[in-house]
Amino acid sequence: MNFLEERIIKDGGVKSNTILKVDSFLNHQIDTDLLNEIGKEFKKRFDGKPINKILTIEASGIGIACITALHFGVPVVFAKKSKTSNIGNDLYTAEVESFTHNEVRTIIVSKDYLTENDHVLIVDDFLANGRALKGLISVCRQANATVEGIGIAVEKGFQNGGRIIRELGYRVESLAIVDSMNAETGAVVFRDQEIY
Amino acid sequence: MNFLEERIIKDGGVKSNTILKVDSFLNHQIDTDLLNEIGKEFKKRFDGKPINKILTIEASGIGIACITALHFGVPVVFAKKSKTSNIGNDLYTAEVESFTHNEVRTIIVSKDYLTENDHVLIVDDFLANGRALKGLISVCRQANATVEGIGIAVEKGFQNGGRIIRELGYRVESLAIVDSMNAETGAVVFRDQEIY
Repeated sequence: MNFLEERIIKDGGVKSNTILKVDSFLNHQIDTDLLNEIGKEFKKRFDGKPINKILTIEASGIGIACITALHFGVPVVFAKKSKTSNIGNDLYTAEVESFTHNEVRTIIVSKDYLTENDHVLIVDDFLANGRALKGLISVCRQANATVEGIGIAVEKGFQNGGRIIRELGYRVESLAIVDSMNAETGAVVFRDQEIY
Repeated sequence: MNFLEERIIKDGGVKSNTILKVDSFLNHQIDTDLLNEIGKEFKKRFDGKPINKILTIEASGIGIACITALHFGVPVVFAKKSKTSNIGNDLYTAEVESFTHNEVRTIIVSKDYLTENDHVLIVDDFLANGRALKGLISVCRQANATVEGIGIAVEKGFQNGGRIIRELGYRVESLAIVDSMNAETGAVVFRDQEIY
């Protein structure tokens, strides 16, 4: 097991056979030392790629993105989930259905901050059905930016997002892939992954 | 001028006499080296305080909070703006009116992650009317946590939030206080502040 899998076993909670609770260290309270390890690991796995921008989506992706960006020495852009009064009108948009909120939202990225010159690492805390990722990929395609890879903290391997995104040809590095969970026993089964 | 004031002059935009555009480096695209300087400065200004937790509110506060937390070596908790399916029911809540979204939202923090043992530094990117801050302070009071201070990147000094929060007895450190802006000339006037 790697550091993230060990932390999930230690501090995660299996709320149901599909809901993994990691809000004590990843998406409500945040252990920034853990995020630092995650950022370091993404840098190692995507080393040599000409990444000049980290793209994520609000809200819980922002912490991982910012600390990962420190390791790459590049800026972050985060897609916003609703239009605010001061963002301007020249926007890339995509429709994203939220698993946790059970609603469809438009995500937006200003055209000023994503262009054909960008080589993007997309990062997020969770990958489940892949809808957020597809929205971020769509925004990159609209900008003619290059997606160099996708870094995920926790992938729900029993949902089909990871398979779909990989079949589209994208390299997805998920630091922990949960293949199954059992709410009765609290057991979490991780997928064996080759370590780079 | 300090590093943040210089950056606002260089890359900020005055959209109206009340709206300052900093989304090229602070709240849409994020310059994480700048956030690192902001975190270092908060650490310097609140050095010696027994801070064991950084509290912020989603979304744009999260980046500053996480990188600041690295300098303090403590975890972040971010208040959420809506209830998701996996957060639990044991919550502190406060009502916050949003300036940019023009609506009232309930912010929530799980009781698991804020307690009477916490000595909190509240951080956010912007301080205008102070409503978000009042919500975060309310959540700390409900938890009987101690607010050791408040660190803000950009304060709109021509709105009354900073004055109100300081009059309540809280120490607010804003790295840049904008006292006035002029949309016609693009001029930004900063408040002179004593440097610690």
